[in-house]
Amino acid sequence: MGKNVELGSNVYFEDGAYVEDGTKIGDNVRIGPFTQILWGSSVEDDCIIGSHCIIGHPSKFELQKTDFSITSPKVTEFVIKDPITRVGKGSIIRSDSTIYKHVVIGRKLRTGHGTLIREHVTLGDNCIVGTQAILDGYIKVGNKSMIQSQCYITQSVTIGNGVFIAPGCIFLDNKKIILGQGLDGPTVEDYVRISAGTKILPGVIIGKYALIGAGSVVTKNVPSKAIAYGVPAEVRAFQSDEDVKKYVDSIKGWQ
Amino acid sequence: MGKNVELGSNVYFEDGAYVEDGTKIGDNVRIGPFTQILWGSSVEDDCIIGSHCIIGHPSKFELQKTDFSITSPKVTEFVIKDPITRVGKGSIIRSDSTIYKHVVIGRKLRTGHGTLIREHVTLGDNCIVGTQAILDGYIKVGNKSMIQSQCYITQSVTIGNGVFIAPGCIFLDNKKIILGQGLDGPTVEDYVRISAGTKILPGVIIGKYALIGAGSVVTKNVPSKAIAYGVPAEVRAFQSDEDVKKYVDSIKGWQ
Amino acid sequence: MGKNVELGSNVYFEDGAYVEDGTKIGDNVRIGPFTQILWGSSVEDDCIIGSHCIIGHPSKFELQKTDFSITSPKVTEFVIKDPITRVGKGSIIRSDSTIYKHVVIGRKLRTGHGTLIREHVTLGDNCIVGTQAILDGYIKVGNKSMIQSQCYITQSVTIGNGVFIAPGCIFLDNKKIILGQGLDGPTVEDYVRISAGTKILPGVIIGKYALIGAGSVVTKNVPSKAIAYGVPAEVRAFQSDEDVKKYVDSIKGWQ
Repeated sequence: MGKNVELGSNVYFEDGAYVEDGTKIGDNVRIGPFTQILWGSSVEDDCIIGSHCIIGHPSKFELQKTDFSITSPKVTEFVIKDPITRVGKGSIIRSDSTIYKHVVIGRKLRTGHGTLIREHVTLGDNCIVGTQAILDGYIKVGNKSMIQSQCYITQSVTIGNGVFIAPGCIFLDNKKIILGQGLDGPTVEDYVRISAGTKILPGVIIGKYALIGAGSVVTKNVPSKAIAYGVPAEVRAFQSDEDVKKYVDSIKGWQ
Repeated sequence: MGKNVELGSNVYFEDGAYVEDGTKIGDNVRIGPFTQILWGSSVEDDCIIGSHCIIGHPSKFELQKTDFSITSPKVTEFVIKDPITRVGKGSIIRSDSTIYKHVVIGRKLRTGHGTLIREHVTLGDNCIVGTQAILDGYIKVGNKSMIQSQCYITQSVTIGNGVFIAPGCIFLDNKKIILGQGLDGPTVEDYVRISAGTKILPGVIIGKYALIGAGSVVTKNVPSKAIAYGVPAEVRAFQSDEDVKKYVDSIKGWQ
Repeated sequence: MGKNVELGSNVYFEDGAYVEDGTKIGDNVRIGPFTQILWGSSVEDDCIIGSHCIIGHPSKFELQKTDFSITSPKVTEFVIKDPITRVGKGSIIRSDSTIYKHVVIGRKLRTGHGTLIREHVTLGDNCIVGTQAILDGYIKVGNKSMIQSQCYITQSVTIGNGVFIAPGCIFLDNKKIILGQGLDGPTVEDYVRISAGTKILPGVIIGKYALIGAGSVVTKNVPSKAIAYGVPAEVRAFQSDEDVKKYVDSIKGWQ
């Protein structure tokens, strides 16, 4: 363990866990075997960090001395200046997960295994990030949103509150795949549901309460409350207020 | 190593491997570096467990004190009461794989790297679970079935014998994405083949010997021997008995 | 550390890193915690190998004594006879990545986290292999090609120079899913761009400079410079020489 670690009470380190200088660990925290908590990390009270995790992984810029993303205007809105990693109170980070520096996470995040959260990501309270889901940097997510297993969320994406993104969805950020072109990730408004294996094209805005069907390719904006699906996704119907309420109510108890 | 470990002959532990109390390791077993065999696990003869694996990972209920899945009637059929993990004779579990408690695996499972098998999963003999494939709990799989890389198999799914699921397929369990709604995973009958990147919607039954084309979205039941594909998948033809026999014969030698 | 390690100057081993006999480590190399460099591996100058990696993982044949792939004529062209793993000068291999024996990698490979490169893979210089991308063995990739996160590249695939494959693309190798049938992976020519979540069927050739839209299923050959998309993918337009030049120029500075 490093020398300048602010350590709470009742912290349990399993075999091979280590904690660098310049970190802060709250009360009632468990750090799994072969897990590293690197400088600049703060793990708040009542967290469980699983095996083989890395908290406070160096950013691309720190490792490679370059990060082209930052030349993109839209990306700059997401920057977290301090090289910190904050894991909020009561979070559970499951094994093989990697969380970068410049990441601020609210209370009670639950992750699956092998999740990746890269630099300049802000997550609200009570979120879920599923197994092998990737938040590839420069992303904002609200409260009570769920990004399920094997999703790929690209840079410059904004996700609201109470959003459900089912397994295997992919967000795109570069319309013509010209390297160095400005990135333009999609925006997902509050209480949207996106079913599994859907692709969301760059710049698309999915309106509040919308529901996107499985395996869709969303190429244009989707209005609020719409039900859209297909390749390309078309608006097929609109949800009643009652339907919308069912979903919103179903996540109220979620904590 | 824990004190109450039943240890066979010719067991080889690599650096950083550890085995908790209340486990049983058969003859001729190799445990890779930085791998943990946790209490309640039984690794039978002739198994190879790779590096950075976890065998006997705590269930969601054990870790979070809640598991909403169990309130779903269909899910209860899959429950394995004992908090055991059994890895059958001659299995090869490759690196970075995590297998939960309440999992019973037959002989000669072969996994890729980074596979996840969550709680209440039963696997028959001679199965394959590919790299980064996720069996997300409450699942039954027969003998000689292959779930290839990056597949996501959701809760309350039943998969028969001799089934081939190509890389990147996703199974869904919740039709309208209302949390707390009863889960209803698809059923895949014996000798079905599903090509890569296909999504199978909740409650769908894919009949014996059916063949599903790549990138399909399967929204309704598929009859036995049918060839179906597209978004949404439609039945396009039926296989001859000879075609079906070719596939069945091709996996006979598989062991 | 093994005894017969050829060790350069300024090599830094983090806690739990180990290096077997019969390996060669160049100058200015950093080996991350809990990472294994196995016999037959050569890590050239200026490389960074992250945490929890395996370099020189045993091949399927070495582990299982069988590898059916090799009975397929097309696969034999990809075989690298020596059981070596060469990681070229200036490469960065991020955490949880596994690279097999019989792999030859050029200069300045950059990987994401949890990448898998199996046996008999040749990669040129300045390539990228994204987080959780799988190169499943018997593959050739040219220079300056990028295979993004969560892609699955199957056996007997050839990828040219300057190719961009966006996240979540899947390559298939077996048309009718008959086990033991000869494998026939797709071929991707120079400067092709493939957008996210696309599936490429066995034997398909994608011609030089072609651009494939997101979520496509490519069932037949695509001519040079074509823009193709959909399920199944159809040619919708052709790129002007100017459009093609924009992409080619955009990766010139890439190194």
